[in-house]
Amino acid sequence: MGSLQHKYEGLPSPSETVGKVLTCKAAVAWSPGEPLTIEEIKVDPPQKMEVRIKILYTSICHTDLSAWQGENESQRAFPRIFGHEASGVIESVGEGVEDLKRGDHVVPIFTGECGECTYCKSDKTNLCEKFRVNPFKSVMVNDGKTRFSTKDEKPIFHFLNTSTFTEYTVLDSACVVKIDSDAPLKKMTLLSCGVSTGVGAVWNTANLQTGSTVAIFGLGAVGLAVAEGARARGASKVIGVDINPDKFIKGKAMGITDFINPKEVDVPVHQKVREMTGGGGVDYSFECAGNLDVLREAFSSTHDGWGLTVILGIHATPRLLPLHPMELFDGRRIVGTVFGDFKGKSQLPHFANDCMCGKVNLDEFITHELPFEKINDAFQLLIDGKSLRCLLHL
Amino acid sequence: MGSLQHKYEGLPSPSETVGKVLTCKAAVAWSPGEPLTIEEIKVDPPQKMEVRIKILYTSICHTDLSAWQGENESQRAFPRIFGHEASGVIESVGEGVEDLKRGDHVVPIFTGECGECTYCKSDKTNLCEKFRVNPFKSVMVNDGKTRFSTKDEKPIFHFLNTSTFTEYTVLDSACVVKIDSDAPLKKMTLLSCGVSTGVGAVWNTANLQTGSTVAIFGLGAVGLAVAEGARARGASKVIGVDINPDKFIKGKAMGITDFINPKEVDVPVHQKVREMTGGGGVDYSFECAGNLDVLREAFSSTHDGWGLTVILGIHATPRLLPLHPMELFDGRRIVGTVFGDFKGKSQLPHFANDCMCGKVNLDEFITHELPFEKINDAFQLLIDGKSLRCLLHL
Repeated sequence: MGSLQHKYEGLPSPSETVGKVLTCKAAVAWSPGEPLTIEEIKVDPPQKMEVRIKILYTSICHTDLSAWQGENESQRAFPRIFGHEASGVIESVGEGVEDLKRGDHVVPIFTGECGECTYCKSDKTNLCEKFRVNPFKSVMVNDGKTRFSTKDEKPIFHFLNTSTFTEYTVLDSACVVKIDSDAPLKKMTLLSCGVSTGVGAVWNTANLQTGSTVAIFGLGAVGLAVAEGARARGASKVIGVDINPDKFIKGKAMGITDFINPKEVDVPVHQKVREMTGGGGVDYSFECAGNLDVLREAFSSTHDGWGLTVILGIHATPRLLPLHPMELFDGRRIVGTVFGDFKGKSQLPHFANDCMCGKVNLDEFITHELPFEKINDAFQLLIDGKSLRCLLHL
Repeated sequence: MGSLQHKYEGLPSPSETVGKVLTCKAAVAWSPGEPLTIEEIKVDPPQKMEVRIKILYTSICHTDLSAWQGENESQRAFPRIFGHEASGVIESVGEGVEDLKRGDHVVPIFTGECGECTYCKSDKTNLCEKFRVNPFKSVMVNDGKTRFSTKDEKPIFHFLNTSTFTEYTVLDSACVVKIDSDAPLKKMTLLSCGVSTGVGAVWNTANLQTGSTVAIFGLGAVGLAVAEGARARGASKVIGVDINPDKFIKGKAMGITDFINPKEVDVPVHQKVREMTGGGGVDYSFECAGNLDVLREAFSSTHDGWGLTVILGIHATPRLLPLHPMELFDGRRIVGTVFGDFKGKSQLPHFANDCMCGKVNLDEFITHELPFEKINDAFQLLIDGKSLRCLLHL
């Protein structure tokens, strides 16, 4: 696309930054649940096989929220820079990085792809041996150190292979996807997590066939991305389930054809779903609520013989799966999906093209936009269920 | 194969039997756990879409055992004729039966195939809407009545769509598979249940690829059939797990390459399996023990990213699956299988050919042979874990 490429012009000149420690603004979390503070931090140059990125846009996902709130004791590492949905431009690359260069438009991915390990070479999984999603990881693989520090040299921890609530971040190159420079970076931010997870769960994990029926439990950004993925694949019926009726209006634009508000039906939801599908249930159900009672309903909503339930929600509970082993003999299946089973570096550029050509419509997902400094307001919008994605401009 | 066919010559002439009530010997269960008694019973002629079969061989499977012992209160129906693994010859067919005729060599199947329903027309399931396995069913679909009665006209209940512990039985034609008359009926008996279940779990449910690694938990007839199926598909390593070391000798002939006796290792079995597979675990595990602790080990024995656990064992416990939902995010999957996902009437004739041409070796599965009258001894051999299959001659 040579001459058509839109080159980002906002990078400082290489002589000012490359190989040097940068000072920039970041939203730092100092302790669980305390408001983030915007302050100046230092960002080291990228080491071997690492990349330093100037973040242009970032948004907030529930995983940031729960990590910030410190829901999982063992994952706590503060001070820390959260954030994993973003887009930006490469400022510099470390030794050995050959597939990326300064100026490339990129999105970070929290579950990387080294391209070399057994997992990356298998077509059955997107879980890279070295760079798969790991909420416990808070330092770089290379040297076990952070690339962020406070002005007085105290380390600031990384998050989820990404850390995007900062003007500059350093990532392993395995966690950086180059996208077409014609693609609008604002929308591409969505591909870092939520939209890819939802659409990928339909396209890759379920491999949904045209004409199939679908039920989606939980209509946040991920659930609505499932709807959009199902619409794009030609599902014949997409039933949305949520206790927030506001989600129903939004859902219609994303392919949802029928709605169930569990608070407004007097039978179990799975029974209602079966009624709406000729008695048999849907071909596919997607659990995007992170609730085991909902998961049980999602499982029971599918057709026996071939129904597939895909788990997308994060289940922080110690409770086990509410399924009896003999229920699997009825031919219903249940699987989990991480990042919609997309192999990020190989597949996401193609998915970006699908979005650019209108096969998948990203317009409805960005419901709010705010300057980076208002990041705590963006958290609140998500907590209140008012936003799907609030895009922060850096 | 016209002139090569081996016609069974032992049927009484049609004028003596067709359309008439027959008197024959059967092994009748009168109450849970009480020894079966061989006695004369009456067998009605087949009704619409039914078939009456002269049983030549039958064997006993654990499902007969647990039903006879009355383990599941709600499944009890006595007096009853158990048995579902058998082979025989059609004595007569009822109205409308077009795919089967008198003299055909057949095996009964407990999970039928009507060929007409949504399920039979889907390539994703072998669970026929009308004739799928149903341990609660004890009468014929046509009229809700039995075709068996005592000499004084009291009904004797059917079992699992089959009831083969009798010289003559009546089945829905959807539960009767015609096989090549050159096939040795003795061995074909095994295709009614155990061997098809095990081999099918590998070939159909798991669709195991050449070079894959396998662990099998529980080395009864079904577990060994899994081994034979894996061997036939070219598995590179087949680890057998059983607390009975006698099974290991048998297993070697069926493709088992490595053994683990859980009583003789000082680490959890899944850890041992991982050690034996370079640290990662097997590609496929098969649970054939009907025990949830074993199931847990089977699940943990598979490789993350792509490991598949197939449940074949019957889990009579009220306990739920011992899995946490987040464990499915590691890419391990778990599914159940009924009759190895074989669609009986469509696929079993081909499988019979695979057995006849030596692709699958059935020789080792029949460990004992006894006259029909010794059926209680055959039960005891199974209870004592001494037999894989004891073939009863009628």
